[in-house]
Amino acid sequence: MNNKKHYPSGFGDTSVFLPGVSIDCVVIGFDLKQLQILLLKLKEHDLWMLPGGFIRLDEDMDQAATRILEERTGIKLPYLKQFHTFGDVNRRDKTKFPEVKQIQEDDFIRLIAFIEQRFISSGYLSLVDIRSCAPTPDALSDQCTWQAAKKLPQLLYDHKEIVEKAMEQLRSRINYMPVGYSLLPEKFTMKEFQTLYEQILSRSLDRGNFQKKMLKLGFLERHEKQLTGGAHKAPYLYSFNEKRYNELVKQGIGYIS
Amino acid sequence: MNNKKHYPSGFGDTSVFLPGVSIDCVVIGFDLKQLQILLLKLKEHDLWMLPGGFIRLDEDMDQAATRILEERTGIKLPYLKQFHTFGDVNRRDKTKFPEVKQIQEDDFIRLIAFIEQRFISSGYLSLVDIRSCAPTPDALSDQCTWQAAKKLPQLLYDHKEIVEKAMEQLRSRINYMPVGYSLLPEKFTMKEFQTLYEQILSRSLDRGNFQKKMLKLGFLERHEKQLTGGAHKAPYLYSFNEKRYNELVKQGIGYIS
Repeated sequence: MNNKKHYPSGFGDTSVFLPGVSIDCVVIGFDLKQLQILLLKLKEHDLWMLPGGFIRLDEDMDQAATRILEERTGIKLPYLKQFHTFGDVNRRDKTKFPEVKQIQEDDFIRLIAFIEQRFISSGYLSLVDIRSCAPTPDALSDQCTWQAAKKLPQLLYDHKEIVEKAMEQLRSRINYMPVGYSLLPEKFTMKEFQTLYEQILSRSLDRGNFQKKMLKLGFLERHEKQLTGGAHKAPYLYSFNEKRYNELVKQGIGYIS
Repeated sequence: MNNKKHYPSGFGDTSVFLPGVSIDCVVIGFDLKQLQILLLKLKEHDLWMLPGGFIRLDEDMDQAATRILEERTGIKLPYLKQFHTFGDVNRRDKTKFPEVKQIQEDDFIRLIAFIEQRFISSGYLSLVDIRSCAPTPDALSDQCTWQAAKKLPQLLYDHKEIVEKAMEQLRSRINYMPVGYSLLPEKFTMKEFQTLYEQILSRSLDRGNFQKKMLKLGFLERHEKQLTGGAHKAPYLYSFNEKRYNELVKQGIGYIS
């Protein structure tokens, strides 16, 4: 992991960055049982954090989010959606960045000096299929792994609040558009789909009602049961009808018609 | 209007500000016919802008929004909601800040130098009852007035895009929560309420359906008709049931039950 190329952009020359602003990425995955958050562990410290970084003076903030996530986790996502900017004066007081005695490199010390100034942070959210990602830690971290959203370890600064806000956004989104396209594998059972909704909403849903409502909205396609030995018990598999799904995302599933 | 006290905070000493970030406030009002946006006209220039400013190093971003709006328009709103942060590199290239030849004051020149650096901008949204506000321009502006959202004049930087994003958020909000509490007077007719929804959605709604749906949600209270000469034609007046309205804002009016 001590590969220089693997250090984040601007490492050793923080003058390339817009001052005052950082970016933190909340990447949410679903392992068919619960929601997972992608986290980095700071090298040689028992401290976890969201993949984050700074905006270069010559790049759009949205571009920066994509670059930062890739530099820090190896994961390239074309679409990260900004969801909130965190700007409290004391947002970094809860769990401060530790003194990094072990790391004596000058570049790292310069980076630490830069991040000691106040900055606000824009949160970016992405929903991914865990099975399609192979996260890799950057040179500042010794782990990059998925952690259950309901059992997060101690996080840097206000990162716990940032995750909570992202989850809140996802919960609110479920009220007016379908959710799941990028979180589920191509084919899934109705039970897996319902579990996803239940995990997002943090409550149980009635099985019959859920299935009826979802099918009525027309964004699910039912496939043949997989014929195995116990075929009569095999559940139907579903996939998303991309066209109809995107229509509903765009127009919203509202109570106004 | 040339009252020094009326200049925005930090005018003449930009070192009190967090670099790299500004705030722009989109205040939306409703005159019972159409949506209106609160705008400032730059002194001695034919250029309009959203009330905006910078974050002091010692204040939370949310506090800054409230302070900036009050300093620039005289309007004190307890609740401004951050809705999006605008971070494109070229966001200020469309309609640049003009050369301000007429204004020779040193403080103003320093402020201009500060705003020539790149900054991203966090948009804050507030919905207000126009009748309850008396906007007053600050010393940098010679007008502070409401302008129809559908016929905006030329705006500074990307402010038109900021207004559009705010309108988009309001449209999306209408899909899963009641809207109108702070936009309408205490009592209003069903027609006025429907007009508000139609203006937000930019389309007509069926009168019968609209009324039925809204009444069913239980957040409206019907009052007696006002007995005037033409009493038989007078429409019912409604007001919001605050408790039920807030419940629905909190839980969302979703398609999932």
